[in-house]
Amino acid sequence: MKFNNRNVYVSPKSRLGVNVRIGDNSVVYDNVEIGDNSIICNDCVIGEPLNAYYHDPRYQNPATIIGANSIVRSHSIIYANCRIGEGFNTGHRITIRENCVIGKHCSVGTLSDLEGDITIGEYCRLHSNVHISQTSSIGNYVWMYPYSVMTNDPYPPSHEIKGGHIGDYTQVCVHAVILPGVQVGENCLIGANSVVNKRVPDFSLAMGDPIKIVKDLRKYVVMGKGKPYPWMTRFDRGMPWQGIGFEAWAKQRQTKGTA
Amino acid sequence: MKFNNRNVYVSPKSRLGVNVRIGDNSVVYDNVEIGDNSIICNDCVIGEPLNAYYHDPRYQNPATIIGANSIVRSHSIIYANCRIGEGFNTGHRITIRENCVIGKHCSVGTLSDLEGDITIGEYCRLHSNVHISQTSSIGNYVWMYPYSVMTNDPYPPSHEIKGGHIGDYTQVCVHAVILPGVQVGENCLIGANSVVNKRVPDFSLAMGDPIKIVKDLRKYVVMGKGKPYPWMTRFDRGMPWQGIGFEAWAKQRQTKGTA
Amino acid sequence: MKFNNRNVYVSPKSRLGVNVRIGDNSVVYDNVEIGDNSIICNDCVIGEPLNAYYHDPRYQNPATIIGANSIVRSHSIIYANCRIGEGFNTGHRITIRENCVIGKHCSVGTLSDLEGDITIGEYCRLHSNVHISQTSSIGNYVWMYPYSVMTNDPYPPSHEIKGGHIGDYTQVCVHAVILPGVQVGENCLIGANSVVNKRVPDFSLAMGDPIKIVKDLRKYVVMGKGKPYPWMTRFDRGMPWQGIGFEAWAKQRQTKGTA
Repeated sequence: MKFNNRNVYVSPKSRLGVNVRIGDNSVVYDNVEIGDNSIICNDCVIGEPLNAYYHDPRYQNPATIIGANSIVRSHSIIYANCRIGEGFNTGHRITIRENCVIGKHCSVGTLSDLEGDITIGEYCRLHSNVHISQTSSIGNYVWMYPYSVMTNDPYPPSHEIKGGHIGDYTQVCVHAVILPGVQVGENCLIGANSVVNKRVPDFSLAMGDPIKIVKDLRKYVVMGKGKPYPWMTRFDRGMPWQGIGFEAWAKQRQTKGTA
Repeated sequence: MKFNNRNVYVSPKSRLGVNVRIGDNSVVYDNVEIGDNSIICNDCVIGEPLNAYYHDPRYQNPATIIGANSIVRSHSIIYANCRIGEGFNTGHRITIRENCVIGKHCSVGTLSDLEGDITIGEYCRLHSNVHISQTSSIGNYVWMYPYSVMTNDPYPPSHEIKGGHIGDYTQVCVHAVILPGVQVGENCLIGANSVVNKRVPDFSLAMGDPIKIVKDLRKYVVMGKGKPYPWMTRFDRGMPWQGIGFEAWAKQRQTKGTA
Repeated sequence: MKFNNRNVYVSPKSRLGVNVRIGDNSVVYDNVEIGDNSIICNDCVIGEPLNAYYHDPRYQNPATIIGANSIVRSHSIIYANCRIGEGFNTGHRITIRENCVIGKHCSVGTLSDLEGDITIGEYCRLHSNVHISQTSSIGNYVWMYPYSVMTNDPYPPSHEIKGGHIGDYTQVCVHAVILPGVQVGENCLIGANSVVNKRVPDFSLAMGDPIKIVKDLRKYVVMGKGKPYPWMTRFDRGMPWQGIGFEAWAKQRQTKGTA
């Protein structure tokens, strides 16, 4: 239904894997590599040229890589010089600017905006409308919810660009703001509408504007539910421990020395 | 100007009413029904197939219905299996995921994102950039303003999806967050940047993070303006009581037994 | 790469300057004037017709002007009856509704949404996802950051539309809300997540929900950095005082009587 080869342009300088489908009205620019069995839906732009293109007649598009088994939903834009791992999954109208490195099995939701020069680990989930500024970094298994934002300019406007970091397994709720250069630990829960203006230790529940460290999440008990955090023992959909259980998976990783 | 039939695809399995116009570069997929005199502007996708489509060769697109006298502005995406009443009006680049039921005479503003499995009543106005998560429900005559959001996951990430509800006539101001499963009453005003973490009784002015119930709106007096709420006696544009007056309309409805 | 003249429509009633490039799948409607050396990237709509177009067979598109040396990135929509100065620079998917007047050398970031009837001065920078409501006005050299919003309805919903104003050189940080009709002075810094519910005097650092005037920015000293505000003596990229220095430039202006 969506793949009628209507008004599609794929640069002859790009390499599409086996069984790759490109939706109507989409464009794949020079020097893009898309892994096997991936789907680029309609009205997408992959390998969007950098600014230099508009002014430099000798411009050559740097390499853009999207791993196998990925699906990029319609109206999305991914700039050149991004490297994205396999199993990538997007909503509609995402924007990923140049020089982003995204690990395998990540998803980026509708309207999310990654400003470039960003590093994201594996199995992260950015929901709709997440904004990540340049030089920010995100660990593995991190989830961010709508209208959450990582900023990077401590004294706006300045020439000093200083993205923050979010540690493994951390959850960042809707409308939360990570201020420039702030380090958020592993296994944290950042409450809705928080302003994170200082370092957050591992396993913290942090809330408020500016945040307070409300409690150690390992001691957080919900009536009738037990201890919801760390969350990995009660949730596994799409995670690498799915079907194995988090503890067995973590032990395996330790044994293999990959942890 | 916008309807030149350039690069348009309308599935032969769709049914367009009398005098329906489809803008350039738009796509209407299988099993879509669009009511008389409706306008789908350019670069839209109507009846976007569900996920199963990408993997199941026997996939059949479920029915999508958009009522008569509607206008869907450019770059919008409406998934299959949505039922939308007559007089629907959208901004640009809206996204409505599958299984949404929207009553007549609603509007959804530019960039708004309805995540699917949502019920919305009649004569609601979602402004630009409203985000509604799955299983949320909204009554009638409700207005939501930019960057307001309804969430659904009480212990993120979890398998427990629990959307909230917003009652008839309620106004939800910019940047307000409705937390998962929260019931907001009828005729409320939720202040800008509020975090609504508990049930809000009818006729409340609620503000803050977390909200406080500041006052009963029926007792809210503004110098030189009288009592601005309930708002229905002072505002009628596009509402069913336009030209009749709210009280006469409400009485009519009661008499007819449709209230 | 992007300019293959594929599926492009330019109205014969429009006037393109020398060396103007129009990207694939873009549309330029009637009565648009684009200055020399400007670039309209792919999938854009310039001169989007007003509502009357859908109903009035005698509709004529009012003039839309975009100055020379501008770049409008892909998937953007600019309505008819806007006047935009030279050196205009946008991200992707911006929306500018009718009757906006924007001075020279402004930029508007990805997904920003200008609702119409807005006045913006020179050298302003709206980052991604800024929302400006109707009848708002913005001075010169103003920067606004993601998810900041100017509102206009004091008693929603009402017929009373009352946009606010932001003075020259002011910085409005992420997630800040300017409430309807509020006047923000010159040379202010509005903190992240603030709700600006009252007049802000010149040179104020204002933060919180609702804001407090925290200090006079001229007295704000950062250890090891000196006084970061006013910012114009330490930042000049893209500003008219680039290479000259702010003080020399300001003096020049005064002498010329253009200040």
